[in-house]
Amino acid sequence: MSKEQKLSTESYKGVRDFYPEDMAIQRYIFDTWAKTAESFGFERYDASVLELSELYKSKGAENEEMVNEQTYTFIDRGEREVTLRPEMTPTVARMVAGKRRELTFPLRWYSIPNLFRYERPQRGRLREHWQLNADIFGSHSSMADAEIILLASEILKGFGAKKSDFEIRVNSRKLWNAYCDSWKLSDDQRKNISGLVDRKNKISGEEFISSSKTILQDETIHQEFCALMDGTSSAQEKPEHAELMNVIESLHALGVQSATYDPTIMRGFNYYTGTVFEIFDTNLDNRRSLLGGGRYDNLTGLFGGDPIPAVGFGMGDVTMRDFLESHSLLPQNLQGVDIAVIPMSEEYVAPAEKIAATTRAAGKKAYVSLADKKVGEHIKQAEARHARAIIVVGEEEIASGIFTLKTLADGSTTTGSIEDLLK
Amino acid sequence: MSKEQKLSTESYKGVRDFYPEDMAIQRYIFDTWAKTAESFGFERYDASVLELSELYKSKGAENEEMVNEQTYTFIDRGEREVTLRPEMTPTVARMVAGKRRELTFPLRWYSIPNLFRYERPQRGRLREHWQLNADIFGSHSSMADAEIILLASEILKGFGAKKSDFEIRVNSRKLWNAYCDSWKLSDDQRKNISGLVDRKNKISGEEFISSSKTILQDETIHQEFCALMDGTSSAQEKPEHAELMNVIESLHALGVQSATYDPTIMRGFNYYTGTVFEIFDTNLDNRRSLLGGGRYDNLTGLFGGDPIPAVGFGMGDVTMRDFLESHSLLPQNLQGVDIAVIPMSEEYVAPAEKIAATTRAAGKKAYVSLADKKVGEHIKQAEARHARAIIVVGEEEIASGIFTLKTLADGSTTTGSIEDLLK
Repeated sequence: MSKEQKLSTESYKGVRDFYPEDMAIQRYIFDTWAKTAESFGFERYDASVLELSELYKSKGAENEEMVNEQTYTFIDRGEREVTLRPEMTPTVARMVAGKRRELTFPLRWYSIPNLFRYERPQRGRLREHWQLNADIFGSHSSMADAEIILLASEILKGFGAKKSDFEIRVNSRKLWNAYCDSWKLSDDQRKNISGLVDRKNKISGEEFISSSKTILQDETIHQEFCALMDGTSSAQEKPEHAELMNVIESLHALGVQSATYDPTIMRGFNYYTGTVFEIFDTNLDNRRSLLGGGRYDNLTGLFGGDPIPAVGFGMGDVTMRDFLESHSLLPQNLQGVDIAVIPMSEEYVAPAEKIAATTRAAGKKAYVSLADKKVGEHIKQAEARHARAIIVVGEEEIASGIFTLKTLADGSTTTGSIEDLLK
Repeated sequence: MSKEQKLSTESYKGVRDFYPEDMAIQRYIFDTWAKTAESFGFERYDASVLELSELYKSKGAENEEMVNEQTYTFIDRGEREVTLRPEMTPTVARMVAGKRRELTFPLRWYSIPNLFRYERPQRGRLREHWQLNADIFGSHSSMADAEIILLASEILKGFGAKKSDFEIRVNSRKLWNAYCDSWKLSDDQRKNISGLVDRKNKISGEEFISSSKTILQDETIHQEFCALMDGTSSAQEKPEHAELMNVIESLHALGVQSATYDPTIMRGFNYYTGTVFEIFDTNLDNRRSLLGGGRYDNLTGLFGGDPIPAVGFGMGDVTMRDFLESHSLLPQNLQGVDIAVIPMSEEYVAPAEKIAATTRAAGKKAYVSLADKKVGEHIKQAEARHARAIIVVGEEEIASGIFTLKTLADGSTTTGSIEDLLK
């Protein structure tokens, strides 16, 4: 490439560069996720972003379409078809199934993977995003469902969200399937009506009613369906309803009062088998879904052997950051060092490095201001770097061994030897 | 896919699954890297693993070959040629160049990216690995070179390595180029002789001498070359030698005594322009290179504008873990929770969850043992999970409100209300 041809400084389309300011927010989000998950005894795992494409094709035709049209899939030099993972659940199911004989169940596992989707970039729908994934493997207990939802709720509270900032809506695929069974729906009808319910909030009430009528055809069934959606049906007659209420009551007992039954919660993936849930922002201007998950008891069966029951959820970094920003929950001072050591001129850089080393040995973050500039410029830079204090190093200080520590927030100063100042 | 066709649980070839045990080690390594870099005031950044391929083709023909033969490169659906990054330096140069007007130099930046190379998998040469990258941008000062080397040294010490566990060898591309200039070597000769020096430790002494003779041809030049390699030349006559000794003496002044001049240190990448260095394990059985880096003052020039001087290094996770294992530096107890709450039977799961919630509210990690098993089995599992203590919850405990906290390490017990036990 000749000197005239300048390289572009743009990132690849639809992915993000994390400069330190954004990275500090990203790390705050990841750290809060990790800390809360670990407080529940969840253990962290990870895997490569590269997976064999067959992992995503196995779950049925609709996923095959997803792999072909919405993923980064390519053929490697060994003629293997490889995909950049679009979600983590197939990977974790593969890992759990792969060591099922060595692992002690139930497992509580979490991860913070990056995921790729080949989509037209738009707000909140980038081609790459990060997601917290937390799952319990090996428990059929409804308390595992309740605990997963409690964890999601505690994570939001861990960011400083109030209970009133979000609400939890829970449904059961089992209960929904029991309705579909009682209505004797065909496979096509089930698929179409489930898809319609999943889109309910994106279409008008009239369209919802007319489309559901078209799918269900039978008038009595349609009335039952509408009653179910409105919450006026006799759902409580079904045993699956009691199971679901068990999860919700356990949540109430654990202090999660905002959990309610919502028959319209469906979740996109077809691998869910029981409880499904979503958490919504209660902000009237933006009632977005913050996260969702559910029980998927059959997925590990794809790898052979008895399926291992599982329940979990996923929570994206972009949605999380939007939520924290709109509720003013992002802390200040995510960046910064304790002390900037400022040499008066070039010859004091070496002693400044020694002072910085002493400062670090005392457990504080310190850097030496290397630029060949006037002291005023160094101080401006220290402010830009969010340094909490500065120490200037010049002839007088070196001769006397007496230094001045200046706190930048209030301009207050303390004088003494470096050892004294670090106390 | 039919039920008979089982999906494989293997990961993609040459990449790793991180089960919790391995993940705990990986996180310990990343956390120690991050903590030490931040103690020097380095700020963390990140970017996507996806980059446009042109980023790697720009550095000259040898890199074009590398992109074509050793990277994961594919065409996306928008006909763009995309590469999974094989190294981080081009990315960070792109990012720094992209915001050169907004950023305040010098910058201290670090990142822990995953990198991909399409290579035949072998020990320590996986297709995906992670690497700490730390760089100072915008300083020509030799103190920046010294500080980068000091940081690398402090990271090893941060893992508990003794000064005698590793040695630092420093060279200067500028000094080497001055020799090549004085010998009036052609471009081909320079490239071939540099490549030979880079491979010195992989070939025999005889082969090194005969190959260098073939490349250099002239007998006097060959004698000078051999004297340089042996450390018996008059290198100190060159001004570039004084510059290099400046870096080494600064390191000595900062307490890094093991830094020495080694004329055979070359480093593979052709973008280095000044100081180059490597740190070696002093273990006689395995004198491997642990990390390396150097000054590259021209790379950002590829993006237009004046080049921004830079110095940095990279350090891989696989080499790091090998080093820690062979020197017995990996800490025990990287995994674990404070308290496992064990319900005597299913009906005590709900109160156990409440106790766990109280424990977490007190800042401790706690999980509820969900398995439907006997108490002895629960305790075995708590040991497998590295729980430090257990609390059993049954009829008697619930009735009295008095619980027993048992420390697993020594079997000692304390009795009292949950609030008392958490103190």
